Amino acid sequence: LDNHEQDTLRALIEDHHPRDILLLLNLLSPAERRAVYPLLDEDTLAELLPLADEAVARELLHTLPDQRLGAALALMDSDDAADVLQWLDEEERRQELLAFLPHADQAQVRGLLRYPENSAGGIMQSELFSVPAKWRVRRVLEKLRRAAQDLEDIHDIYLVDNRGVLNGVISLFQLLRMDPEQPVIEEAETAPISVTPDVDQETVAQLFKQHNLASMPVVDESGHILGRITADDIFYVLEEEATEDLYRLANLSEGSDLNEVISRTVAKRSSWLMLNLALSTITSLVVGLFEDSISRMAALAVLMPIIANVGGVGGIQTFTVVVRGIALGQIDLNLGLRTIARQATIGLFNGVIIGTALAALTWWRFDDPRLGLLIAIAMLISLVIAGLVGAVIPLAMRRLDLDPPLASGLVTTATDITAFFTFLALATAFLLN
Amino acid sequence: LDNHEQDTLRALIEDHHPRDILLLLNLLSPAERRAVYPLLDEDTLAELLPLADEAVARELLHTLPDQRLGAALALMDSDDAADVLQWLDEEERRQELLAFLPHADQAQVRGLLRYPENSAGGIMQSELFSVPAKWRVRRVLEKLRRAAQDLEDIHDIYLVDNRGVLNGVISLFQLLRMDPEQPVIEEAETAPISVTPDVDQETVAQLFKQHNLASMPVVDESGHILGRITADDIFYVLEEEATEDLYRLANLSEGSDLNEVISRTVAKRSSWLMLNLALSTITSLVVGLFEDSISRMAALAVLMPIIANVGGVGGIQTFTVVVRGIALGQIDLNLGLRTIARQATIGLFNGVIIGTALAALTWWRFDDPRLGLLIAIAMLISLVIAGLVGAVIPLAMRRLDLDPPLASGLVTTATDITAFFTFLALATAFLLN
Repeated sequence: LDNHEQDTLRALIEDHHPRDILLLLNLLSPAERRAVYPLLDEDTLAELLPLADEAVARELLHTLPDQRLGAALALMDSDDAADVLQWLDEEERRQELLAFLPHADQAQVRGLLRYPENSAGGIMQSELFSVPAKWRVRRVLEKLRRAAQDLEDIHDIYLVDNRGVLNGVISLFQLLRMDPEQPVIEEAETAPISVTPDVDQETVAQLFKQHNLASMPVVDESGHILGRITADDIFYVLEEEATEDLYRLANLSEGSDLNEVISRTVAKRSSWLMLNLALSTITSLVVGLFEDSISRMAALAVLMPIIANVGGVGGIQTFTVVVRGIALGQIDLNLGLRTIARQATIGLFNGVIIGTALAALTWWRFDDPRLGLLIAIAMLISLVIAGLVGAVIPLAMRRLDLDPPLASGLVTTATDITAFFTFLALATAFLLN
Repeated sequence: LDNHEQDTLRALIEDHHPRDILLLLNLLSPAERRAVYPLLDEDTLAELLPLADEAVARELLHTLPDQRLGAALALMDSDDAADVLQWLDEEERRQELLAFLPHADQAQVRGLLRYPENSAGGIMQSELFSVPAKWRVRRVLEKLRRAAQDLEDIHDIYLVDNRGVLNGVISLFQLLRMDPEQPVIEEAETAPISVTPDVDQETVAQLFKQHNLASMPVVDESGHILGRITADDIFYVLEEEATEDLYRLANLSEGSDLNEVISRTVAKRSSWLMLNLALSTITSLVVGLFEDSISRMAALAVLMPIIANVGGVGGIQTFTVVVRGIALGQIDLNLGLRTIARQATIGLFNGVIIGTALAALTWWRFDDPRLGLLIAIAMLISLVIAGLVGAVIPLAMRRLDLDPPLASGLVTTATDITAFFTFLALATAFLLN
């Protein structure tokens, strides 16, 4: 890049939201991206780094000098700084960068780095506003006016005893409507919803939703306040969890692979494909039992893709509804039997409808009513099994504390084997003997 | 239910969060549910109705007398009341229920009912706190203290001119740090992010995320403030949009079908199955071209499920990554060619890996190296096509302003046809002639 190009790019970067800059970076090749990184000023970096996906974040951390990164980290909230530092694999480099932060912040960020990324501790920030629970409104308001400038925006005030144990929460709005001489605790919520840092972020998001929270305190086992989670953290959690479910259902590993080095994407995806190769080999072995029937009546093989495809779609329909119902807390494990019965019934009705259509199509195409009848029966049974396994598998996964969406490959294998076995066995028994 | 059972249930209901009650309702049959509905008091109803899914909401609206429903509606925020009334199909009944609300609220809710459910207007509430932009801080604080009790919690104050046009937004936190005699506009954000009521809720959610908003004003074309959207509304939007994408990818219609009358679920799901029946019939016609080859070499049919399954999984992997990338704004249409090239390259590498494994398996199983080579070539081509169509189809859907996830059936049809055609044509040319 010559000087003029650099100036143009710098102007472009200044004019755009960090999110748009990230989109622009996606347009570039890795080499081009590395030419742009040095042009990002520290303010932009401080906003952009926490939003970047893994690939770009790692590139930035490995391209930029410590001093620039340190200055950007110093501008971030503690939770963002910890998230960014988490991408670094070398502990030594992490400590070097931490050294650029003010002393108090270093301790905070080090504290946050202890918690797993997907836990309440991993998404909370240490910056919060707390006052002694016994204070009067007037004094709280005075402290608020003098509060440190790095406190960007708050909604709730945390009330603590002299050991730092959380005694209550009050919103600014409630505070403003109190008499200045009233003790602030009088109108506070004295049994506020809180979590310990080890709680899963998905649970935290559900609590925010159920109770329409604007913020939530994080406390240790003895109730000392450690940090706060705010609504905008939850936006990211909800999006991340949805992406994760979607990816697992689609046989993909965690983490977007849009910017990753291709070899890494290939490694992740091909291991899922290998799993499905193994599963479909089992299916193929079942079909192999009927090799002789197929060579005597190739029409069977011609029709096989239809029952496999439709049965698989039926299985994934049920599977997705049940997986999502579990994730959103609409299906309780106690509901298991009722859920299974319902899905099998739906499968039965769908089997009758689709089976009839398929029978008619097959009769007309092969001019053979018996073939039509047999494929309809196979379709019907396969869609009932689709309803059964589509419901049983995720419920069983949940009971075993495994993540339900991971099992999508099992569902299509089960419907494929059912469809093929029923169809080929019926045809062998009634058409070929 | 006898009196004693009713008392037990009433006590149970009082002790539980409306969300838990909804979960309990799921455990019951429709007849049992209808016996419980009359036991819900108005406060519980006011919290429970907006959270209920379509099926339960409709049952409640058709089971309970107008007076109970009207009393519950009067306790809700305007946006919740409008959401609930939207489930009623009969305009007359809606008007009857509206009559139970205070006069001013009636007008507000009627106003909200005009907007589509998934728009900014459909999720906003009319309750908000606005003051003339020229007021001083002291006067704003005084008004805030006297503010109507139905204003439950606010984070931002909207500043308007004398025609009601939005001039600025200030948070309570910023307000508290100002001098009482300062005009409030001085520290306000005078170019606040706002939307018109017709903007799609997904866009609104992205704005909340990008700008870490706690609330957002909704204004008409001339800038008059109409309502506000708060962070907790966005939790629901994010969850709803994620469910919608997941459902469409899995060939499901909108709206959870966990509680629906079975006939309705069957109607919705079977139309998707019919579509897939049609698509797989096309696949079957392609296979039919090689009926003669299959009867001469049934091993071809035995191997077909493997390449179809693995190719399909590869296609859905790419499709899901691209669909999600588009939804999260990580893929821009200008990125199209690069995205397609990347996915095809990944498909190529995966094809080499999986093709090699499959060739070895096939050689060993059928003792025929040539069959192994041909299936490997078919697998390779099918996975490259999986990468191509998995990327091209959602990008094309987006360009045509269609919802990308709807096209998942097309992707598997394309990979199935490619895999079968390549494999059967190669076998016909090189093994059977």
